[in-house]
Amino acid sequence: MLIGGIEAGGTKFIYGISTSEGEIIDKQTCSTETPEMTLKTVVDYFMDKEISALGIGSFGPIDLKLGSPTYGYITSTPKPYWGNTNIVGYFQEKLQVPIGFDTDVNGAILAESLWGSCKDLKNCCYITIGTGIGGGILVENQLVHGILHPEIGHILVKQHKKDSFEGSCPFHQDCLEGLASGPAIEKRWGCTGSQLPTNHITWEFEAYYIAQLLVSLILTVSPQRIVLGGGVMHQKQLLPLIHEQVKTLLNGYIKVPQILNDIKDYIVSPSLEDNAGFLGAIALGKSVI
Amino acid sequence: MLIGGIEAGGTKFIYGISTSEGEIIDKQTCSTETPEMTLKTVVDYFMDKEISALGIGSFGPIDLKLGSPTYGYITSTPKPYWGNTNIVGYFQEKLQVPIGFDTDVNGAILAESLWGSCKDLKNCCYITIGTGIGGGILVENQLVHGILHPEIGHILVKQHKKDSFEGSCPFHQDCLEGLASGPAIEKRWGCTGSQLPTNHITWEFEAYYIAQLLVSLILTVSPQRIVLGGGVMHQKQLLPLIHEQVKTLLNGYIKVPQILNDIKDYIVSPSLEDNAGFLGAIALGKSVI
Repeated sequence: MLIGGIEAGGTKFIYGISTSEGEIIDKQTCSTETPEMTLKTVVDYFMDKEISALGIGSFGPIDLKLGSPTYGYITSTPKPYWGNTNIVGYFQEKLQVPIGFDTDVNGAILAESLWGSCKDLKNCCYITIGTGIGGGILVENQLVHGILHPEIGHILVKQHKKDSFEGSCPFHQDCLEGLASGPAIEKRWGCTGSQLPTNHITWEFEAYYIAQLLVSLILTVSPQRIVLGGGVMHQKQLLPLIHEQVKTLLNGYIKVPQILNDIKDYIVSPSLEDNAGFLGAIALGKSVI
Repeated sequence: MLIGGIEAGGTKFIYGISTSEGEIIDKQTCSTETPEMTLKTVVDYFMDKEISALGIGSFGPIDLKLGSPTYGYITSTPKPYWGNTNIVGYFQEKLQVPIGFDTDVNGAILAESLWGSCKDLKNCCYITIGTGIGGGILVENQLVHGILHPEIGHILVKQHKKDSFEGSCPFHQDCLEGLASGPAIEKRWGCTGSQLPTNHITWEFEAYYIAQLLVSLILTVSPQRIVLGGGVMHQKQLLPLIHEQVKTLLNGYIKVPQILNDIKDYIVSPSLEDNAGFLGAIALGKSVI
């Protein structure tokens, strides 16, 4: 049985097919242009693939409320052309297969809990730090939806004392995404993060901001493990700085051995590596078979 | 069938009996002294009450992990005498009835979802702003536990520009609880909040800090409704200021009508009023029948 998956990102779409056990058979990439161009490229790919189900993990905000007139839409994204796009409807009409739909990051945490570093954990989070900052959350084996879905990239954070950058979020200026996303690093220094030395102060800033998000997650949903992915996390010096900052900020308040003694096994890189998002889409497809 | 309930608070214990439908038959209060004194007072009360189950909603941190050697304990609280107290074991031994145990605020949100302002909602939060700040969270009808339980009072917040108070939290200094709890107000101004005028700037500070918590909750667990209780919320001028601040801070990013148009019905006072905590304990007792 083949499952199709689409990781719909703001920069690129990754799409392909896999077995229901998460073994990838084929995977393609195209850049995110207008919905007309990009969705056409992707649907053409699937036309002869005989998939039993399709999973779509999308950038947000999206409408996940079954029965809503805009269920399956990308809704109020600031990304040009993509506001109000009926992404599920488009593929449903052309492919006529069941479609599992959620945020890219909710997909990713589902995949990590099925096949990755959160295997068999019922409470865990996947965070991506890249062009945007987002998170998927599993609570008692259920993806968190509620009134919308998690949008944790936009929580407010305390600014680092040495950081005078005004922030880059069009909605909130100096929220987490406005201070710590890839574009925020680029706007602050005039070059990308990968062009900065590994001992540059920007990594201290990043660790401070990301640690505030993790502390907030720990104090709110109390995950059993947190997975940190996304382009900014490719900077290998960053994860140890984050471990240290989380412990500093919590200051011994949460007395569990996972945090006090084993934080390297508690806040981890995606074991599915850069396939976490794509396998997330596969996991969403698997969930509707 | 009678259910016993104990709301174990840092300042006082409220205990009594109720029907399984949440109709209170009797309710008593005693101040929180040492475990020896207070637990004895409470257990003596229940001795002749013929309850079928007992619910305990407790201040934290507590151990909720079934099978843990310290399950049912109040663990690392800074409250003198109460660290490492086996509260469930104590009542189990003396009363020999099934005991439901959780944080006071997880109990409260369960009660609000059974009998109060969150009736029939599967995703909702109860926050108390008082001697401490805490929150209970229901996700898809399940109380959030994870590695521990929510401890949202200690999230980090941006300090209000006009507020130079250094904070009062022994662990984190200027975390939310350190800036916005009842004792923080008292330490900041040298008098209790209820002694300050209703147009005092402290209420602007409170609204700013509490709104940051609510924004963080909205962006993380996306609740369908949030209930705000606790002593500080008795200041009636505060809730409208919080409504306004939440909208200001989110700045239109979360486009759901509940926030954009109906925020007064979205962030509400406990409809169970000051019984939310006690009925929370009853709800926890009901859950183990």
